[in-house]
Amino acid sequence: MNACVLIIGNEILSGRTQDANLVFLGRRCDELGIVLAEARVIPDVEQTIITHVNECRAKYDYVFTTGGIGPTHDDITSACVARAFSVALERNPAAVAALERFYEPGRLNDARLRMAEIPAGALLIPNPVSGAPGFQLQNVFVLPGVPDIMRAMFDGMTDRLVGGPSILTGSVATGLFEGELAQGLGAIQERFADVTIGSYPYFRQGRPGVNVVMRCTDRARLEAAIAAVRELITGLGGSIL
Amino acid sequence: MNACVLIIGNEILSGRTQDANLVFLGRRCDELGIVLAEARVIPDVEQTIITHVNECRAKYDYVFTTGGIGPTHDDITSACVARAFSVALERNPAAVAALERFYEPGRLNDARLRMAEIPAGALLIPNPVSGAPGFQLQNVFVLPGVPDIMRAMFDGMTDRLVGGPSILTGSVATGLFEGELAQGLGAIQERFADVTIGSYPYFRQGRPGVNVVMRCTDRARLEAAIAAVRELITGLGGSIL
Repeated sequence: MNACVLIIGNEILSGRTQDANLVFLGRRCDELGIVLAEARVIPDVEQTIITHVNECRAKYDYVFTTGGIGPTHDDITSACVARAFSVALERNPAAVAALERFYEPGRLNDARLRMAEIPAGALLIPNPVSGAPGFQLQNVFVLPGVPDIMRAMFDGMTDRLVGGPSILTGSVATGLFEGELAQGLGAIQERFADVTIGSYPYFRQGRPGVNVVMRCTDRARLEAAIAAVRELITGLGGSIL
Repeated sequence: MNACVLIIGNEILSGRTQDANLVFLGRRCDELGIVLAEARVIPDVEQTIITHVNECRAKYDYVFTTGGIGPTHDDITSACVARAFSVALERNPAAVAALERFYEPGRLNDARLRMAEIPAGALLIPNPVSGAPGFQLQNVFVLPGVPDIMRAMFDGMTDRLVGGPSILTGSVATGLFEGELAQGLGAIQERFADVTIGSYPYFRQGRPGVNVVMRCTDRARLEAAIAAVRELITGLGGSIL
């Protein structure tokens, strides 16, 4: 099973806000054995959202959207998803009830009630933090953008997702340069075709280093690849960090 | 003019690495007056990269790719871009010269020379930090994934980009809830159709707040919208943070 994340929000594209949801969803997909195959960041523009939702739900088993389901004028994700599926956006009684439980009497104004406008036929995703639910329509899961709330909601609905064996990861860091490791690492990748090996150079406190990251669903093969990389590094006279 | 960012790398999709390049490129696009219309995060898979490069270069004025141009087996971006454009990947003498200037004699091994394999007809993008250049092929700009290096290379080639008036931004933060602001904010958005107004709730140290962000190319209109939002907040009895 594979998945796509649709990050909806001008604030991410403008560089004003650092997205924090992709890291979380990427890790969760690994644990669930779902291949996160793509993520897209798109603006709060109606036709753009509709087009991407339709492209991605046709292309991937699961689509997770974040952002745009709050009470303000720029929160248009729910309406766009309804249009993408050609269903009505309607006041959902269970969503109203969730909001009524959350807000003190008299505080549930018209703007907040907008958050109970849900596409017809959708299954709600409960929000244990701030009341307003997300929803699932077929293979599209609509979640909020605020990270703490999104995480709690995602973790509460993982029983709806069918995955596979967890994708296990391991890494080895060294102060060697990537260009010194490259040839040997390529040979290890050839020997371990079932392990995805990535090489990620970095600079920390002015010193270069490389993180070699291995990904595989089989623990024994993962461990063997890690051992091979460690051997390569020490054989080149490098230290393992 | 608009642009798309293609973030290439398994490590971003797996959640192992927090992308730091989109924030930078989003801000630079604002300054340059280029509308950053979309970003995609895609894995190190040949056909996937080729497909997205071709989709995005047809759809947007500029495409900025990050990642996958180092010396290791998983660095396949340059080869994929060559295939997307149906041109040869060939050893570029100027790129070799750049590497020779950077590496001490004897250190420029075969793996590192791979970084001088550049699509035919491309214009190099100099790398003042670590030698290995990126390149531009028509409207596609191929940059590395390491943030410090990417930034230096991007800033060195902005004279190749045609933008427009800078997109100016301003913001007002308040401890009011989004649901209290929503109606008045919607009315301000209607009055200021030329200003994009976004509302971003957050929690900090357990306390909720909202950042209202305004974007516009006209400073006077931006200031007027900021004043209207401040007036809305104080009129509702809220404090401006």
